[in-house]
Amino acid sequence: MRGSPFKEIRRAYGFDEVAIVPGEVTINPDQTSTQFSLDGITLSAPVIASAMDAIVSPSFAVEMDKQGGLGVMNLEGVQARYDDPDEVISELAEAPDDEATEFMQKVYSAPIREDLIGERIEEIKSNGAKCAVSVTPASTKRLGPAAVDAGADVLVVQSTVTTARHTSKSARGLVFSELLEMVDVPVMVGNCVSYEVALELMETGVHGVVVGVGPGAACTTREVTGVGVPQVTATLDCASAREDYFARTGRYVPIITDGGIRTGGDLCKAIACGADAVMLGTPFAQAQEAPGKGHNWGMASPHPALPRGTRVRVGVSGTLEQILYGPTSKTDGTQNLMGALESCMGMVGAFTIRDMHKAEVVIAPSIKTEGKHHQLGL
Amino acid sequence: MRGSPFKEIRRAYGFDEVAIVPGEVTINPDQTSTQFSLDGITLSAPVIASAMDAIVSPSFAVEMDKQGGLGVMNLEGVQARYDDPDEVISELAEAPDDEATEFMQKVYSAPIREDLIGERIEEIKSNGAKCAVSVTPASTKRLGPAAVDAGADVLVVQSTVTTARHTSKSARGLVFSELLEMVDVPVMVGNCVSYEVALELMETGVHGVVVGVGPGAACTTREVTGVGVPQVTATLDCASAREDYFARTGRYVPIITDGGIRTGGDLCKAIACGADAVMLGTPFAQAQEAPGKGHNWGMASPHPALPRGTRVRVGVSGTLEQILYGPTSKTDGTQNLMGALESCMGMVGAFTIRDMHKAEVVIAPSIKTEGKHHQLGL
Amino acid sequence: MRGSPFKEIRRAYGFDEVAIVPGEVTINPDQTSTQFSLDGITLSAPVIASAMDAIVSPSFAVEMDKQGGLGVMNLEGVQARYDDPDEVISELAEAPDDEATEFMQKVYSAPIREDLIGERIEEIKSNGAKCAVSVTPASTKRLGPAAVDAGADVLVVQSTVTTARHTSKSARGLVFSELLEMVDVPVMVGNCVSYEVALELMETGVHGVVVGVGPGAACTTREVTGVGVPQVTATLDCASAREDYFARTGRYVPIITDGGIRTGGDLCKAIACGADAVMLGTPFAQAQEAPGKGHNWGMASPHPALPRGTRVRVGVSGTLEQILYGPTSKTDGTQNLMGALESCMGMVGAFTIRDMHKAEVVIAPSIKTEGKHHQLGL
Amino acid sequence: MRGSPFKEIRRAYGFDEVAIVPGEVTINPDQTSTQFSLDGITLSAPVIASAMDAIVSPSFAVEMDKQGGLGVMNLEGVQARYDDPDEVISELAEAPDDEATEFMQKVYSAPIREDLIGERIEEIKSNGAKCAVSVTPASTKRLGPAAVDAGADVLVVQSTVTTARHTSKSARGLVFSELLEMVDVPVMVGNCVSYEVALELMETGVHGVVVGVGPGAACTTREVTGVGVPQVTATLDCASAREDYFARTGRYVPIITDGGIRTGGDLCKAIACGADAVMLGTPFAQAQEAPGKGHNWGMASPHPALPRGTRVRVGVSGTLEQILYGPTSKTDGTQNLMGALESCMGMVGAFTIRDMHKAEVVIAPSIKTEGKHHQLGL
Repeated sequence: MRGSPFKEIRRAYGFDEVAIVPGEVTINPDQTSTQFSLDGITLSAPVIASAMDAIVSPSFAVEMDKQGGLGVMNLEGVQARYDDPDEVISELAEAPDDEATEFMQKVYSAPIREDLIGERIEEIKSNGAKCAVSVTPASTKRLGPAAVDAGADVLVVQSTVTTARHTSKSARGLVFSELLEMVDVPVMVGNCVSYEVALELMETGVHGVVVGVGPGAACTTREVTGVGVPQVTATLDCASAREDYFARTGRYVPIITDGGIRTGGDLCKAIACGADAVMLGTPFAQAQEAPGKGHNWGMASPHPALPRGTRVRVGVSGTLEQILYGPTSKTDGTQNLMGALESCMGMVGAFTIRDMHKAEVVIAPSIKTEGKHHQLGL
Repeated sequence: MRGSPFKEIRRAYGFDEVAIVPGEVTINPDQTSTQFSLDGITLSAPVIASAMDAIVSPSFAVEMDKQGGLGVMNLEGVQARYDDPDEVISELAEAPDDEATEFMQKVYSAPIREDLIGERIEEIKSNGAKCAVSVTPASTKRLGPAAVDAGADVLVVQSTVTTARHTSKSARGLVFSELLEMVDVPVMVGNCVSYEVALELMETGVHGVVVGVGPGAACTTREVTGVGVPQVTATLDCASAREDYFARTGRYVPIITDGGIRTGGDLCKAIACGADAVMLGTPFAQAQEAPGKGHNWGMASPHPALPRGTRVRVGVSGTLEQILYGPTSKTDGTQNLMGALESCMGMVGAFTIRDMHKAEVVIAPSIKTEGKHHQLGL
Repeated sequence: MRGSPFKEIRRAYGFDEVAIVPGEVTINPDQTSTQFSLDGITLSAPVIASAMDAIVSPSFAVEMDKQGGLGVMNLEGVQARYDDPDEVISELAEAPDDEATEFMQKVYSAPIREDLIGERIEEIKSNGAKCAVSVTPASTKRLGPAAVDAGADVLVVQSTVTTARHTSKSARGLVFSELLEMVDVPVMVGNCVSYEVALELMETGVHGVVVGVGPGAACTTREVTGVGVPQVTATLDCASAREDYFARTGRYVPIITDGGIRTGGDLCKAIACGADAVMLGTPFAQAQEAPGKGHNWGMASPHPALPRGTRVRVGVSGTLEQILYGPTSKTDGTQNLMGALESCMGMVGAFTIRDMHKAEVVIAPSIKTEGKHHQLGL
Repeated sequence: MRGSPFKEIRRAYGFDEVAIVPGEVTINPDQTSTQFSLDGITLSAPVIASAMDAIVSPSFAVEMDKQGGLGVMNLEGVQARYDDPDEVISELAEAPDDEATEFMQKVYSAPIREDLIGERIEEIKSNGAKCAVSVTPASTKRLGPAAVDAGADVLVVQSTVTTARHTSKSARGLVFSELLEMVDVPVMVGNCVSYEVALELMETGVHGVVVGVGPGAACTTREVTGVGVPQVTATLDCASAREDYFARTGRYVPIITDGGIRTGGDLCKAIACGADAVMLGTPFAQAQEAPGKGHNWGMASPHPALPRGTRVRVGVSGTLEQILYGPTSKTDGTQNLMGALESCMGMVGAFTIRDMHKAEVVIAPSIKTEGKHHQLGL
């Protein structure tokens, strides 16, 4: 005897568990296009640097723009709290390991200064680069329109979990449709992981949806709160929402997979599973140009009562250009990410990112580190 | 050619294999309620400290009550066998590793003294705290009513595996419906793991059912006897029994998931899978207030012929208040358990524990320790 | 487009992947019976010691009989090749690691002497113990009847893989039905793993079927040749054959699961999956009475051209009596195997081995070694 | 609410996840035949050495022929670029670890000289051995016919991913049906992994199809680009194409599984899953006769912009004869590969490779390294 199940539980998959199947036709990598468009803004590389203090400073955002991608500056981080953010970031990077979280909790208790926000945006814009900034939903009404007035080209509204319907004690929460009337730039919103929420967000009129909650193996949001969905499944589900919304309305709202992408392989898998672009942390924290000087930390790490994640040492592996375009003698997939994507598109027979969405994907046993080694020339 | 299968075997899941999916709406954590009720006794925190000698002394039970939870004192442990239990627990904690099991076997061969039971209950009650005590089924008739007469507010009847129907050579075993006529306090019974047994226990009239047999990764009951069910499946199955029983009778019998919960994430998953409250061992053994001083051992460890589990060093991580409510600079989920639960409820959009039962849960690959790290601010 | 599948592949399970679900009723362990019968020969403990030179010497077989089980002496091992087998076994146990396989290949090239077989059987019989001996199919006609004439009580015909139909260049292979006319003792045959082969073997009239090919994690038969079936599935499939054969003929042919059983938990799982008895190697190689003095090796290890498995150091953990019946202070399931079985039967509510066959079994994630620890008193 | 799935994802399997089930009949290994035929060319051993510079030199190809197998010489490697390839290979083998990839990138930038190709082929042919050579699709028109004119007996056209339809900017790519009119020797083409591509390749008229993309655990093609299919599934799918093509046309196009085979067990599994022959790298790189002197590297390792895989130290384990036929005292499956195959065929009851295709295969938990050890004599 067994009653009706209390609930159905389906299997979700992460990057390490899948692989891309080569296509029925192959094409030369030099015939592929990796272009990504967000409501009229076009990137030649579909890669966005995460709004993390150890990664996106104004100068990093400028360099990212030169390389064809986009860097998102966090308007609630060190850049908006200190006159000399580089110095504070250096101190954070050099604090002893066992004091790092406590020190961060202190650093991030300094107030956000709206005057600094304008200055930082100006630093980016004056160098001729596109400027993308991020705010949390709770601060959006206060900081978002101000940032756009100061010249921001893209607004990212992002928290661990964002929905179109949020309940709080404050008289009236953030309503995305109202926000869109106030700002005249593309708005990306996230993070979400499910079909329903992605669809509801698209229905508010936003221009891009950021996908990913607790995906990383050591993303401690999942360890601390149990919440998280592996990225392959999250991406597939939100891509499904995008297709249905597109079929119904004719408006194509790209999805950006954020979190857990470490190698060219992860990046290719995200796109094969339906992402239009990816948001990367660690790989860019390893760039010479990143202010963290080989360290990285998440924006939930300094949470005063419930910190999730710690500062980690990621090392410096090369210039941003090398990381994105090579050449390299590294063989672990962490450099020449765009070369890897074009090579993958060639093997899959995809001329565009949109073609890549049709690639076959299989569930495959995790890659282990022991030494099997066999490759043939392309 | 293949005959009819000898038996069907279904897949069962543990905490490490699942994750909670954020909800369609989100709410602010400060709008959630974590209240738990057991037949009129109400806790503001749905957490119960296991009836283990290294955890629940009378003073720990008092502190637990202050913090909104409940500590269960074991009436067959050191508290009921020695005039100075603290000293014996200290000796147990300090015995050399290779002698610990043997030493325990000796310590637990001392007789249980009914006079001490009354004293210990009085220690708790005189401090104004609720008093919960546990007995094994074999001793229930002898010790249970006496404990209630001495002032116990909750009676827990607990063994590795408990059913409503037990056969022994003694003329007449424990019948729960008869016990309930003898004692006038809420009775929790366990442990069980299946729909059938949970349902049968509920039908005897008990007020709560404790769920969990051999769930922990190193719970040696499974290694020694092969018996055990991973906690997610056990919780789901017993929750299913609770719902069916409630639908049929209108009486709501809460289930308490016991075993294998180490982090806020585990706790949240247990509740998302249907638990009304959780029973914790290790996290409370790590409290400064616990008599084990950073050690813990199960009540099956000293079994004279078939010991299961050993004394383990768990360390002291903070005060009970920090463990339950923070603040903390620990990022591994072992502190601020209630903050984690409220944060999870916010992301799931659950105002109450009962709402949390509707959360979507996915099977997700186990969290590994290697270093992926990416978090965003909530 | 995808063609019809080349072949169907089903999932098979091993001991580490399953767990036993407690029953709807429980009984006191002292009310259980673990008796096993093989065509009139009855054992109080359903455990058989593998025909390995490091385990079963004549004196070990006598001790095993005293303890209620059965030890099988290998008639093609050292006992049948050397006047002083104990000395040879000591030399084998002490050879340096990197020379062990080569040394074994040499030792096992000495001829089998039929006179020694008679002597060894007499050593066992003169001590009042039951005598079980094993031969490979190729030697059965030559050695089997001779062993029975010398007093053997049970004949085990065993090779890595045995079927009722074997093709070789020799004029005429072993036909089990003919063998059964030549010897008047119970005959166990194996090893097999599938429904079909188990059924065909039963139809030849043999009295017991030994189950298991390449089950162990490091059994190198699987590594070397790819052949093997995890033991849970092998046992379930052969149990299914036993049931169908019994339903059709009324003759009950017990199955004996052999290989991969290390702990009480493994033993209980084998029986819950349909085994009537188990054959154990390592746990008995760890007995003080075993001639290997803490070492063990398989009979395929010395294969001259294709050795599989090596000599391993298993250590000496206690007397045979302790291993089977305790008492013990070990908590890892390697001692008091029969106590573990009785405890399991109690939790499952099984009075007999036959009742244990009805236990529910679930697929559960593998037990890992990290430190979760939570047990409650039985 | 959940939309229609964005795409279906099926589970794929690798060697470590499956095992071969013994057959209903068994035969003596000396009655088996392991013969493999490729359009009239017959090998007594179905094993082909990969076209890797660390493995197949002209002298290695001669030795491989003597042992009944086939070695493929790479016409785009060191043999075709340098007058003294042995010296260059030695230098490559001895370069410091951290410079190996860069050094390789340099070595492989030297031009391919057609005069050297003729010389190397002559070295093989003059020793009376069959000569097999490999080229990439892009070089096939230039190098293929020339090699055949110089005496090559088998032409292998091989790249990481090959399809019958490739798009490039050059006016006209390689068309296999046209190639087959130009060369009068058997042509093997690969690598592919899917039913569709294998079938399309067969339909062009080629004589053999090589199967395998990114199968190895550390094959970094999968890590770098995300592309790859575990070998068991790839082999099953391509075998399905072979059967359908054979049923429709009467022409039998053998498939050769390439990549990830390390042990006799892997080899047997590949054949049980439908391979007609296997292509091996590492096991032959370990032969005394291999020019890499205990090192190995893939042909994608020196890719100038996107290297995949590195030079690895594999050690020297014995002569080629020992690796293929033993005798050995190694018990890990890396030696006596043909003895392992014959032993497996005996247990499965397969007289021929074609019979092996009918073997039952199960999904079995991965072999772990911990110490279970139990074998019985065959």
